[in-house]
Amino acid sequence: MIFMDGYTQDNAPGRYYFDWAATAIPDSSGVENIPAFGNPSSLHREGRQAKAVLEDARSRCAAVLRVPAKHLYFTAGGTESNAMVIHSLLRRRHAAWLLWSAVEHPSVRENCVVIEGLGKHLGSIGVEQDGRVTPATLEKALEKHPETRFAAIMAVNNETGAVMDVPSLVRLIRARGGAPIHVHSDLVQAIGKIPVDIAGWDLDSASISAHKLGGPRGVGLVYLRKPLDPLYTGGGQEGGIRPGTENTAGAVALAVCLERRGTPSVVKAEYEAASRRWNRFIAALRAMDRCTLIPQDRQDADSRFSPWIVQAAFKHIPGEVMVRALDAAGFAVSTGSACSASKPGRPVLTAMGVDEPTSLEGIRISQGWSTTTEDIAALTQAIRAILSAFKIPAG
Amino acid sequence: MIFMDGYTQDNAPGRYYFDWAATAIPDSSGVENIPAFGNPSSLHREGRQAKAVLEDARSRCAAVLRVPAKHLYFTAGGTESNAMVIHSLLRRRHAAWLLWSAVEHPSVRENCVVIEGLGKHLGSIGVEQDGRVTPATLEKALEKHPETRFAAIMAVNNETGAVMDVPSLVRLIRARGGAPIHVHSDLVQAIGKIPVDIAGWDLDSASISAHKLGGPRGVGLVYLRKPLDPLYTGGGQEGGIRPGTENTAGAVALAVCLERRGTPSVVKAEYEAASRRWNRFIAALRAMDRCTLIPQDRQDADSRFSPWIVQAAFKHIPGEVMVRALDAAGFAVSTGSACSASKPGRPVLTAMGVDEPTSLEGIRISQGWSTTTEDIAALTQAIRAILSAFKIPAG
Repeated sequence: MIFMDGYTQDNAPGRYYFDWAATAIPDSSGVENIPAFGNPSSLHREGRQAKAVLEDARSRCAAVLRVPAKHLYFTAGGTESNAMVIHSLLRRRHAAWLLWSAVEHPSVRENCVVIEGLGKHLGSIGVEQDGRVTPATLEKALEKHPETRFAAIMAVNNETGAVMDVPSLVRLIRARGGAPIHVHSDLVQAIGKIPVDIAGWDLDSASISAHKLGGPRGVGLVYLRKPLDPLYTGGGQEGGIRPGTENTAGAVALAVCLERRGTPSVVKAEYEAASRRWNRFIAALRAMDRCTLIPQDRQDADSRFSPWIVQAAFKHIPGEVMVRALDAAGFAVSTGSACSASKPGRPVLTAMGVDEPTSLEGIRISQGWSTTTEDIAALTQAIRAILSAFKIPAG
Repeated sequence: MIFMDGYTQDNAPGRYYFDWAATAIPDSSGVENIPAFGNPSSLHREGRQAKAVLEDARSRCAAVLRVPAKHLYFTAGGTESNAMVIHSLLRRRHAAWLLWSAVEHPSVRENCVVIEGLGKHLGSIGVEQDGRVTPATLEKALEKHPETRFAAIMAVNNETGAVMDVPSLVRLIRARGGAPIHVHSDLVQAIGKIPVDIAGWDLDSASISAHKLGGPRGVGLVYLRKPLDPLYTGGGQEGGIRPGTENTAGAVALAVCLERRGTPSVVKAEYEAASRRWNRFIAALRAMDRCTLIPQDRQDADSRFSPWIVQAAFKHIPGEVMVRALDAAGFAVSTGSACSASKPGRPVLTAMGVDEPTSLEGIRISQGWSTTTEDIAALTQAIRAILSAFKIPAG
């Protein structure tokens, strides 16, 4: 199989993968052959079979996510899902404010900036020092921008693991009078990692990526409670929401991944297992002299954060140097998100009030479903060894 | 393999596939395992390996297409490639005219209409009765819209197979003075089918899709002679042109497909073989009493048309009825493009001046690399049988 387990690097000897937030190790078990290569828009048998396979995949995704299948549209991934929702605002007449939390992924932040350049008004929702949007920071943003018609609030931050209390924040938004506010949530780091309830959280739209779940690149979902006016159009596929010949095989693979990783009971069990592994790791990091957790007050067991991600700074070791040193020792970790690797600065950490020297020392470590306690012990030891090797400069 | 030969319908007994213009029968031979699952934007070994694989795929595509690798950007497919080029115009200050040929694919036409709604000016380039843009129709459009700054002219029409003389048309555009005109060409039905020379044709941008070449869904290329200001932004991948975690496996598969189907010598040989098969088929269709080729004057051997596609109308049999009747007999054909299956009318045929009754009787038949003379003979016989069964109504 090429796009799932065709990747041959999975279990390279001597390698420890701790960059699951960038992309998961592919997991193809349970993916069946696709019984139809046809174009799902075609009327003939090959087309109808492909259409049936596609709609079955949509229903299976919907069952896992507990939303109506007709509210799910297949896309090319999380980035496109975020972008298409934001850019659809260009087709609305009002120029009223859109708000984005100051820690959003670049695929939200950058697209908001683009449409600001095209005449929309943009404001940001601040975060507390722990990197979380709270009712207080949200309230402040809404007071400053009473004309708000759109708000993007991610569920789990991709750099720090900060978990937003999305349902409370949405309730606060709904409790305000005035013109309705469309609430969009980037769920890319949340699905399969923490309990999510799209319908119960009362979201208007949400984004999901397959490759963060062990699925293939190039496929994702956008949840839309109501259809939107897409900017990119074409052949009318996906209810006119997302043009282009449907990626039937990708849709099936995403359905399989969601069934494997996204059901409430599996998520609960994996969350607890991940927490057990991670709490011990956080404790070990806190015990290291030169390690500063970001935020500093992150506790060993701390429900404010996802137990799949931690951000930490190591004194006098620039983040990039630490990434390279760990890589040489066999451990894959990252600095910020892979999606900002080509850009300078750490806007997410800056928004949290982290000072610049510390933010430039920050690295992100993220675990996955197959990470073991032994892997984490090896990583802990490797970090200790690097800290010993990189002495604090004299003076 | 899931996304290439995981499709299990390829050789269903008793089925004849004649809808290659909608999607090709997948061909996975020669696709190797992908030696890196990492996120190509990551700094660690898994990321660097993925990046190397991605860049190797880009170089291989560039070698086949004879363009610099840095001018190629991987996308989610032909529709996105078309859409992103058109929508990037929103970030240019001028509101000057964009022209599209009246027979463009919906992913060009519809996106042009969207940006017209956002303040750009739009005009169309007419076609002759044979569905081709000619120097005369182009000249007329340019005279009517002297402020033109963008023109979209596809290389091969997806419904009729009309081949535009793109190099001559581009030369005509370049010979005009004034502000430069960006020329974009949708090559989705051209690559692997007719000789194409992106650089020699002096194009500014072009679109390519993998699944029309036997590759996976969800991956394509956009050729950009100069980088553009994309509307969808995000993590800065693909030189900032196309955001989203790179689909490494899809890129490799596309490179393999291009090497298999896109080199000049293969295209020449396949074009000649396709012509031999198709010329005989066209002759057989012309000999049928109730068959009208679209356009009517299409000859058995006719360099104005792609030898992979034919559009034909059968008197007193609505296109959709013919598609269903052929499907029941084991033959997959279509009416218009799969991408307009959900929309009424036949804008491409209307632009050619085809009368409405005939256009509603039109069907598209398209062959592929594995189509045989015997397949075509069987199709010819099946059409004859249907014509006998569907009598001309009395009166």
